[in-house]
Amino acid sequence: MNSFGERLRMTTFGESHGVAIGCVLDGVPAGLKIDIDYIQEALDRRRPGKSKVETGRKEPDRVEILSGTFEGVSTGTPIAMVIYNTNQKSRDYDNIKDIFRPGHADYTYWHKYGIRDYRGGGRSSARETAARVAAGAVASSLLRELGIEVQSGVCEIDSIKSEKYDFSYARENELNALDPDMMQQQKDAVLRAKKNHDSVGGVVLTRATGVPAGLGEPIYDKLDARIADAMMGINAAKAVEIGAGIESSSMKGSENNDPITPSGFSSNNSGGILGGISNSDEIVVRTHFKPTPSIFREQKSVDIHNEAIEYSLEGRHDPCVAIRGAIVCEAMMALVLADMVLLNMDSKMEYLRKIYS
Amino acid sequence: MNSFGERLRMTTFGESHGVAIGCVLDGVPAGLKIDIDYIQEALDRRRPGKSKVETGRKEPDRVEILSGTFEGVSTGTPIAMVIYNTNQKSRDYDNIKDIFRPGHADYTYWHKYGIRDYRGGGRSSARETAARVAAGAVASSLLRELGIEVQSGVCEIDSIKSEKYDFSYARENELNALDPDMMQQQKDAVLRAKKNHDSVGGVVLTRATGVPAGLGEPIYDKLDARIADAMMGINAAKAVEIGAGIESSSMKGSENNDPITPSGFSSNNSGGILGGISNSDEIVVRTHFKPTPSIFREQKSVDIHNEAIEYSLEGRHDPCVAIRGAIVCEAMMALVLADMVLLNMDSKMEYLRKIYS
Amino acid sequence: MNSFGERLRMTTFGESHGVAIGCVLDGVPAGLKIDIDYIQEALDRRRPGKSKVETGRKEPDRVEILSGTFEGVSTGTPIAMVIYNTNQKSRDYDNIKDIFRPGHADYTYWHKYGIRDYRGGGRSSARETAARVAAGAVASSLLRELGIEVQSGVCEIDSIKSEKYDFSYARENELNALDPDMMQQQKDAVLRAKKNHDSVGGVVLTRATGVPAGLGEPIYDKLDARIADAMMGINAAKAVEIGAGIESSSMKGSENNDPITPSGFSSNNSGGILGGISNSDEIVVRTHFKPTPSIFREQKSVDIHNEAIEYSLEGRHDPCVAIRGAIVCEAMMALVLADMVLLNMDSKMEYLRKIYS
Amino acid sequence: MNSFGERLRMTTFGESHGVAIGCVLDGVPAGLKIDIDYIQEALDRRRPGKSKVETGRKEPDRVEILSGTFEGVSTGTPIAMVIYNTNQKSRDYDNIKDIFRPGHADYTYWHKYGIRDYRGGGRSSARETAARVAAGAVASSLLRELGIEVQSGVCEIDSIKSEKYDFSYARENELNALDPDMMQQQKDAVLRAKKNHDSVGGVVLTRATGVPAGLGEPIYDKLDARIADAMMGINAAKAVEIGAGIESSSMKGSENNDPITPSGFSSNNSGGILGGISNSDEIVVRTHFKPTPSIFREQKSVDIHNEAIEYSLEGRHDPCVAIRGAIVCEAMMALVLADMVLLNMDSKMEYLRKIYS
Repeated sequence: MNSFGERLRMTTFGESHGVAIGCVLDGVPAGLKIDIDYIQEALDRRRPGKSKVETGRKEPDRVEILSGTFEGVSTGTPIAMVIYNTNQKSRDYDNIKDIFRPGHADYTYWHKYGIRDYRGGGRSSARETAARVAAGAVASSLLRELGIEVQSGVCEIDSIKSEKYDFSYARENELNALDPDMMQQQKDAVLRAKKNHDSVGGVVLTRATGVPAGLGEPIYDKLDARIADAMMGINAAKAVEIGAGIESSSMKGSENNDPITPSGFSSNNSGGILGGISNSDEIVVRTHFKPTPSIFREQKSVDIHNEAIEYSLEGRHDPCVAIRGAIVCEAMMALVLADMVLLNMDSKMEYLRKIYS
Repeated sequence: MNSFGERLRMTTFGESHGVAIGCVLDGVPAGLKIDIDYIQEALDRRRPGKSKVETGRKEPDRVEILSGTFEGVSTGTPIAMVIYNTNQKSRDYDNIKDIFRPGHADYTYWHKYGIRDYRGGGRSSARETAARVAAGAVASSLLRELGIEVQSGVCEIDSIKSEKYDFSYARENELNALDPDMMQQQKDAVLRAKKNHDSVGGVVLTRATGVPAGLGEPIYDKLDARIADAMMGINAAKAVEIGAGIESSSMKGSENNDPITPSGFSSNNSGGILGGISNSDEIVVRTHFKPTPSIFREQKSVDIHNEAIEYSLEGRHDPCVAIRGAIVCEAMMALVLADMVLLNMDSKMEYLRKIYS
Repeated sequence: MNSFGERLRMTTFGESHGVAIGCVLDGVPAGLKIDIDYIQEALDRRRPGKSKVETGRKEPDRVEILSGTFEGVSTGTPIAMVIYNTNQKSRDYDNIKDIFRPGHADYTYWHKYGIRDYRGGGRSSARETAARVAAGAVASSLLRELGIEVQSGVCEIDSIKSEKYDFSYARENELNALDPDMMQQQKDAVLRAKKNHDSVGGVVLTRATGVPAGLGEPIYDKLDARIADAMMGINAAKAVEIGAGIESSSMKGSENNDPITPSGFSSNNSGGILGGISNSDEIVVRTHFKPTPSIFREQKSVDIHNEAIEYSLEGRHDPCVAIRGAIVCEAMMALVLADMVLLNMDSKMEYLRKIYS
Repeated sequence: MNSFGERLRMTTFGESHGVAIGCVLDGVPAGLKIDIDYIQEALDRRRPGKSKVETGRKEPDRVEILSGTFEGVSTGTPIAMVIYNTNQKSRDYDNIKDIFRPGHADYTYWHKYGIRDYRGGGRSSARETAARVAAGAVASSLLRELGIEVQSGVCEIDSIKSEKYDFSYARENELNALDPDMMQQQKDAVLRAKKNHDSVGGVVLTRATGVPAGLGEPIYDKLDARIADAMMGINAAKAVEIGAGIESSSMKGSENNDPITPSGFSSNNSGGILGGISNSDEIVVRTHFKPTPSIFREQKSVDIHNEAIEYSLEGRHDPCVAIRGAIVCEAMMALVLADMVLLNMDSKMEYLRKIYS
């Protein structure tokens, strides 16, 4: 339903144009320093309206912590965080309240629930991902204490691929692009699409370093399966690749197997995961985002009475969801890994003896 | 851990060379006809040793139902099924008991658990998937009663792509190949790799038809996310695509959006899922399998003492795991959809009123 | 952890003297009228400071709905509710911050988490139950639509037992007492204890009527087991009885069996539950509450350095937790039953056919 | 549904007169010695037909381990255990196949599922508890490695109460009685009831020693709540008490609070649990069992067509279910505590640092 994770469990709530969005993050071990500035900084990276390649909706996205910390430290109780909505323009949506926008969840929510909050997509809006980013920042703090780092960046936009992956650079440019040499071309593609009242797709590369061997719970909570679940669940994601990903299906075994040496694996086609468990190499994941379905060209659709219509969308929308999607991928990866860290705590009796003796 | 699904929950057990493998399928509604021949038939399709493109391990894979049915009908109680192992040759594995095979789970199980059942990969063996196929057949029976059909086939092997998708044909050829015109080429590729002591990757296409609009539980049990989880969790899977999948990231919004008409969607880039909920169009999923890691060439690795070694594998292995993987994809898709059918039962008060009044 | 229920899942958060307490209620079917006044009314019944038999802490306990409804109706998305804390007097707790109060959770939270929010008991405070009451009111609305009614009242205080059970009367008196003839005696006992700087225990009777046969999920989500879980999890609960309860262990089978007639059961020793499933008779549950551990007499204890101390508590406390506990029992019963209503929706194929055809 | 526990998860299957009963125990940490004789010994204590105070159904209850161990040690993978049924006399039940036995689950299973396996009560039979005992023995092995011991015995039968609690003695007498001085009286009561074609109720006392402070997961997986859930879910259980239990509701706070001293608690009214978390004192639980509903006197009931009938039961039944129930209580307590041991592993960052550095 609206919860994610087993031992570190995030439950999110809220609609795009409702009172607030937020989350309850349960299972944070006691004794973790919770730095609200660090959380806010993650939200600021995801926050809309910072540049021309993003939606014009300007939301301050100020997070408040309602519970779960005492004197700046987690107490082992649930951490609730809330972000009040402030810049809703519900009126923008009056003209679409009886119609189903192509590529959107309008049609399916209506058929599932028989009712929908049409204002800004309601619960299906990507605005919900702000709650994930807040929770992800806490997960990320936990991982950092253990030497694990998660990073994300855009590695392809409108078929323009990055050739190098500079994750520090990705934090500094408005596209979250990984390759300084390709950024301008990628940006031009986004702005061109925007000018044409259209949108473009893109690909996000997410990486985790410092991951110890042993994370992942086979058979049905494998690390790669849980990552696939996490990434495919992000709005507009349509494909997920681990390591060599789709290339794997074109390879021979003799090419694809990563040789093991006393100092580690000599290649990383596996993306750091074997048999659903981390092998201590870098975790490498690619998430493919479709182009934003909200475009400003005239489109064919039907209304709730199943009458054919043509309509043109108004409002404020990202021309490329992959850009801000990168921040969400990072959050989801952090949530998965932190959960796996906790789940692994009771994998062997040796660990139990360490704690209980 | 070892359970899959929320309301229809499969728990599997067993190792490749242990006493037996099996599953407990909980949550099957009472009143479903359980046909053991139908289950056995699915297992027969997955069963190894039927042809030259498969491993030589011949297992009859006879399933027994231990519980949960009465006079051929489900009673609402858990259905336990067991398949005893009969053709284990544990001695084949004596020479690898102290080494980590590249591309396998040996290394990671060892690091996670500090112990491993090295015989045939133990729990990490693809043999475990027989239990999924048995459970999947029950899920499939349930779906068929509601008019939903799940089918799978191989659409690419060693970069040789299918150009048409004939799911009936897939049931008839030893490759589970979808395209009669490409099958021989694909088969040749598999046999060539086998002769070269190597292996090849492949892609499985899975389709579900007759799916009503409304299945999928946003935000964190979205239909596409659950499918990605299910498919990526299959041994050797490295990428999962929904609908247009990786192509989506290269498209414009105006191309990718599926126009809606009074008689349905006029294209299916979405793969039948919008906002994580089925839209009544066909569900379309591609799963990419890496080449079998078990190859018979000399490979570099380390042993459990982290000493460098070179070794050559012996034993019996599939040269292309995607072939039998197709049957597993079908099972996992059926399990996901049947679970979603159950989860959707309480989506609206209208349904509650129908049942309780 | 901090979630309760399977399909109707309440997640609560918040500490006694933190910013706010609240809950996220997930799984409410779409199309349920959500009446904030009805929720507030339930909270008002639990609200402290209404009379002399309660703590002096006066909290308005104003609930706000942050999400999950649209135009007064549930949308199928999570309903978040928040109650900001307003009347905290954290200073009251300065003198106990390093000591463990007998009968309280101070000692165990400290040993579990290594940190505790000592202000008012933090998360272990009965204040958390306000969130349950808010969620319970929504569950109760759902049940009422289906003709199920849950009621609670106090049936014993300080060994003074009720002889009749008038649930309407219970809503009208400050003790939530069930027997108008015994209420004054019970009240005197409470006030006498209060005057003596002591506290008294009590018993709450909870009843559900209109429950259809068939609710409860054997074997490990039996209706009675889930009720026992729910009630024993309320602060200060020490025993739970179903139907004849502890009397059952003194009975003969020939006395205890409830004869079945064409018009129903002719007695109700079972408390409306057989084999963990409702039998359509009244559900009858008794919850025993220990006396409030917060008393104003000098007590022996230790501090966090394990040094012996004597101390006298200050602050504001209920002299009998069973009184307000009655409202919480009602909420928990409603949550259990509503969850069971949802879980039962897929118990048989007949129901699936009704919905999907 | 049919699974119990979060991190140590038992899933049981099987009907009284089906092919087999059994369980899958998932989450056992790798490296635990699994001694099949120890498991068999626990089953032998529960096994029916050992004495006159038990049912005449003689079942050898031979357990087989199908998976999850390697060379006698757990591997971290699911442990499946199966017990084939051998002494079914299904014909005994032909005369009750269309009727509902008072006090049994016949009526409710029928109404819930629309079908029932009437042979010996099918899934609702106490025979299912053999699977719990097998799983409980594994849990118990795990606990013993950490110095935790769980014991059970009968402390009351037909209102005849034990005055002392000798848990070693309980293992030696056919009643599992705790008090050597009362055993004969209790036995006479059972045999008298049996002779009168009737049955008697009883109470089981379960104790855990060596439990460290800190086990239990507030707010909704409190140790006492989970114990209540576990015990109330046992067939024929009607009340559960923790520590002083029902006595608590008659006490004053000044009597009930357990004073804390530098060497521990000086009384144990809490039953070793405060705020839902263990306090390192003994865990003390009482479970009240109703008299066996299967009696051989003529009883009034209805059949599946709701026609009034009178009938007399035949077959083989325990005259007092509390006796063998004691073994099941012990198993359930072990399962709860072992789960809590695992769940507590990630309660604080200090533990994570110990494992991951």
